[in-house]
Amino acid sequence: MSRLLTGTPKADGYFMPAEWHEHSQTWMHWPERTDTWRLGAKPGQENYARVAKAIADFEPVTVCASSLQFENASVLLDHPQIRVIELNQNDAWIRDNGTTFLINGKGGLRGVDWKFNAYGGEYNGLYAPWSTDDKVAHKMLAIERCDRYRTENFVAEGGNIHTNGEGTLLVCEEVFLNSGRNRDLSRDQMEQYLKDYANAEKVLWVPRGIYEDETCGHIDNMAFFIKPAEIVLAWTDDKSDPQYERSAEALEYLTSETDARGRSIKVHKLPLPSPMYTTEDDIRGIDSSQTAKERSVGDRLAASYINCYTCNGAIILPAYGDPNDDVAAGILQDLLPCHKVVQVESREILLGGGNIHCITQQQPNPGIST
Amino acid sequence: MSRLLTGTPKADGYFMPAEWHEHSQTWMHWPERTDTWRLGAKPGQENYARVAKAIADFEPVTVCASSLQFENASVLLDHPQIRVIELNQNDAWIRDNGTTFLINGKGGLRGVDWKFNAYGGEYNGLYAPWSTDDKVAHKMLAIERCDRYRTENFVAEGGNIHTNGEGTLLVCEEVFLNSGRNRDLSRDQMEQYLKDYANAEKVLWVPRGIYEDETCGHIDNMAFFIKPAEIVLAWTDDKSDPQYERSAEALEYLTSETDARGRSIKVHKLPLPSPMYTTEDDIRGIDSSQTAKERSVGDRLAASYINCYTCNGAIILPAYGDPNDDVAAGILQDLLPCHKVVQVESREILLGGGNIHCITQQQPNPGIST
Repeated sequence: MSRLLTGTPKADGYFMPAEWHEHSQTWMHWPERTDTWRLGAKPGQENYARVAKAIADFEPVTVCASSLQFENASVLLDHPQIRVIELNQNDAWIRDNGTTFLINGKGGLRGVDWKFNAYGGEYNGLYAPWSTDDKVAHKMLAIERCDRYRTENFVAEGGNIHTNGEGTLLVCEEVFLNSGRNRDLSRDQMEQYLKDYANAEKVLWVPRGIYEDETCGHIDNMAFFIKPAEIVLAWTDDKSDPQYERSAEALEYLTSETDARGRSIKVHKLPLPSPMYTTEDDIRGIDSSQTAKERSVGDRLAASYINCYTCNGAIILPAYGDPNDDVAAGILQDLLPCHKVVQVESREILLGGGNIHCITQQQPNPGIST
Repeated sequence: MSRLLTGTPKADGYFMPAEWHEHSQTWMHWPERTDTWRLGAKPGQENYARVAKAIADFEPVTVCASSLQFENASVLLDHPQIRVIELNQNDAWIRDNGTTFLINGKGGLRGVDWKFNAYGGEYNGLYAPWSTDDKVAHKMLAIERCDRYRTENFVAEGGNIHTNGEGTLLVCEEVFLNSGRNRDLSRDQMEQYLKDYANAEKVLWVPRGIYEDETCGHIDNMAFFIKPAEIVLAWTDDKSDPQYERSAEALEYLTSETDARGRSIKVHKLPLPSPMYTTEDDIRGIDSSQTAKERSVGDRLAASYINCYTCNGAIILPAYGDPNDDVAAGILQDLLPCHKVVQVESREILLGGGNIHCITQQQPNPGIST
């Protein structure tokens, strides 16, 4: 069970549906490593719990905790729609180390097990080892008794792959061209992997992501499909901010592009919060370690509202105590009047290096047609 | 999810069905501790795999492996009906540390989480610690999104509880009266726990189990219900064997008893294999350890055919290369003509201290009425 398949999803008629396709559940990890998460990961765990419970008000959630944290997680995640299971990791970013679930429109459910190397392996990865992370997708699929495609020669993270569910992918180019991931592959070869394994006809390559994003610029912090031919893009009007030219360049690229069905892309600007920086409190109580990225006072944090999560009937949106929290919420609410925008304070997750989208992974309901 | 319930199964209308009630799956662990299992547990793992595959020919199987063994277990358990998941343990006896699943005849599925102390705790337990084992039932129920009853003040193992599914339990008295388990409880109080949590009206207390059984005499090595008012009992005709008086005493007790519905108990004798003893090879390559029971050359092994497992349409029966292997198989085949008796060589499991029934746990199909 959870057979390793030798073909490709494209050849087998399986594809990655859009995030708004109905979910049967959401998967999350439970943060634990004390050289990434301050104060024994306790503030991080509280933040994950807030996110999990916000989602669980809309759909079932599975949270994967290590054997040692199982009991504590079970107590902190007490909610009728949350199940806590044992499943270990190197760090708690299931968007990236987890499976990308695929459906075939006929009730079938499978998954891609992207090769994972902690965002750059020995070249510029963020932590080591990553071998336990690289088994997470397999373990998720085993639990769900789903068959598995593995990209043994192609490194990718779910956080750099968005889809409109209608043949078009959205990725960030600087991530894939970073030499820590696939130094032996050309851009064309990588595009072919993406088309074959997420099953798409066209890939939109946004040049760069959010300034100082330690993933090298994951798309899920920069832009996402809110509708099949409409994209929301992280934006600032401050031309002195190094982020400005990144967003402007993405805007120019996307508005000049069409999706796989030939539709022009409509882009909605979503303001960024004011620049945020790491404080002394933020790094107090992080274990010294040679195996995790060091954090320093004054580091620019890659805060963005784009890193939100679409679940059944809701958008779970990061909040930072910034005036733009409500501006961003209002824009998304106008764009998706049938979804409820739920704001969850998420600075603690940001300190770990990601945000709400990075810590969630949707499992589509295979019985629902797109 | 997997709520901790405060009432009792009896009050809530949930009961433990007979082992022959249709299963939705079988649960197993994957052996790993090298101070119990010789040669890095590799022969033990092979033996578990043979058992898992034999069962998987009849029903789905879930095998729980530690994070470190997940990949190895996945390879060795390659079978379309076996899923390997991550779930840690102190030792690999899921009959004893796992949940006892309960149904209510209306589609409901719950479980009992018996307090577990490694067969006697600090008094005469077989290994320490046992805290990970004591979380196994909770973890199983969480995965299946089932609610849970916990007996915080009553220690029990599934291996000492058989049921006919019609109100009668079969247990071994010497296990429960052993002072390592429930020294503060009277026999009557223990009987009440059993009646409340397995939901029964009557408990049959077989005085003693198999000679030198390190569990203190678990019933699942000594006798089991093969039909609602019929019991198969481990037997020897050799009056010089210390087992003889144990079996004779049980025979006398059972034939003088009735079940909860007033039916006399019919007892079928199942011969034991010839006495078997630990050899030098058997203990070579077991790690020295102060936390696991020591094994010595010449120890009598508690070999029995009773320690078999009933799955959907089959009996998975221990085999030892003994002439009585086929005698036992023949008797069971005659008693259960619609089941296939499948013999699996199991000496390696026996060396670890148990047998096929000890390493399996059925999950009944709650949608099937008994």
